[in-house]
Amino acid sequence: MYRFFLQNPPDGNTISITGADAAHIRLSLRMKPGEEVIFTREGVDYLSEITEITPNEVISHIIKADPVKSEPALKLTLFFALPKSDKAETIIQKCTELGISEFVPFLTKRCVAVPKALNAKTERWQRVAESAAKQSGRGIIPTLSDILRFEEVLTRLSDFDAAFFCNENSGERLTLPDNVKNAALITGAEGGFELSEAERILTAGAKSITLGSRILRCETAPISAAAIIFHLSGDI
Amino acid sequence: MYRFFLQNPPDGNTISITGADAAHIRLSLRMKPGEEVIFTREGVDYLSEITEITPNEVISHIIKADPVKSEPALKLTLFFALPKSDKAETIIQKCTELGISEFVPFLTKRCVAVPKALNAKTERWQRVAESAAKQSGRGIIPTLSDILRFEEVLTRLSDFDAAFFCNENSGERLTLPDNVKNAALITGAEGGFELSEAERILTAGAKSITLGSRILRCETAPISAAAIIFHLSGDI
Repeated sequence: MYRFFLQNPPDGNTISITGADAAHIRLSLRMKPGEEVIFTREGVDYLSEITEITPNEVISHIIKADPVKSEPALKLTLFFALPKSDKAETIIQKCTELGISEFVPFLTKRCVAVPKALNAKTERWQRVAESAAKQSGRGIIPTLSDILRFEEVLTRLSDFDAAFFCNENSGERLTLPDNVKNAALITGAEGGFELSEAERILTAGAKSITLGSRILRCETAPISAAAIIFHLSGDI
Repeated sequence: MYRFFLQNPPDGNTISITGADAAHIRLSLRMKPGEEVIFTREGVDYLSEITEITPNEVISHIIKADPVKSEPALKLTLFFALPKSDKAETIIQKCTELGISEFVPFLTKRCVAVPKALNAKTERWQRVAESAAKQSGRGIIPTLSDILRFEEVLTRLSDFDAAFFCNENSGERLTLPDNVKNAALITGAEGGFELSEAERILTAGAKSITLGSRILRCETAPISAAAIIFHLSGDI
């Protein structure tokens, strides 16, 4: 069944959508009143029947509302230093499938790709996250932060029960302490981190972890670490 | 230091290379006699000093030979059903970094992409594997099998201590039995597997495993499963 994320909460038992998703239902999918569709918002699936389709609006009636079962119990935020070319899209797509809750792109000294039009990039990434969330059956679209400066990342790390720092080959093997509900994962751009940056991340409370003795590309590291962390949390 | 894979064993303490790598050393890297380079073959690193460079050949003297420390103890073979577009390259690149020993592309009923020129594809994939092996510091270039028919995969599964079958949301969480030295991982193309195919894979001795309740793309599944398996084996 087709799934769409709702931008606004339902109005009682009625869901009204406009814009791109409404046009998609009417023109591409050529759906008709009487057909069923799933609308998802904030971890709830609304199984709904389309009741009316106008050129600007699709109106549906909610048949039943169920919590989405696919959301991981662990909230994992990925802080990733901005890589070159379209690797950020690869990271956001794959890590949305795996269950990341929030993406925080940030800048380090070794980032060579600082987009001139930051907002244009994050709008594109938001579409990648939404598309991957739909396709993988997520209950939320992961949040996408603005691109942060390095110092801003450090101040955010205290929000988490645990923070895992992928720092080349140093560090311990990944383990997940009991009762972690809210964790951060920090990965670098192509050249990794300067020693001074690594020290500041560790001082801010992150734990250095290793992903083995082979050198993983900057887009392979967050995908692999996220898969392992969600395995350790029992979500995968 | 630059690293090249040797096609032939050293001749005593001397290594002679010709072809593309020799041209790369002479023309792109502009290396000179006296400079050091690492040649790797079958899990051994040969730290070597270049002694002579001619238009067709680079001759080096071995300073010392050491076993490569980056090869995982677990040999993991990935059987992946042929996906669309360039996803096979993504799978081969990322899974080479993670430590896969052998790649076996194969055909299922839901494969929509059957290349007309099979050899052209596998030659391209071989270059992707070699490049990823160099970049990630592997001790071997993973073997790339010809594209197999489904039945041929079934007969190969008895070669392994354990075989893990990623079959949508069914199956158990990944665990690695003790003393597994040689495992197989089996993943599908975009549409997964027909029920009859899944039954035959299970009958051939594979164990059905789940990668959680979110639907992973056909290129995300093998990368995630390989990361988790190498974590369970202690290699990551």
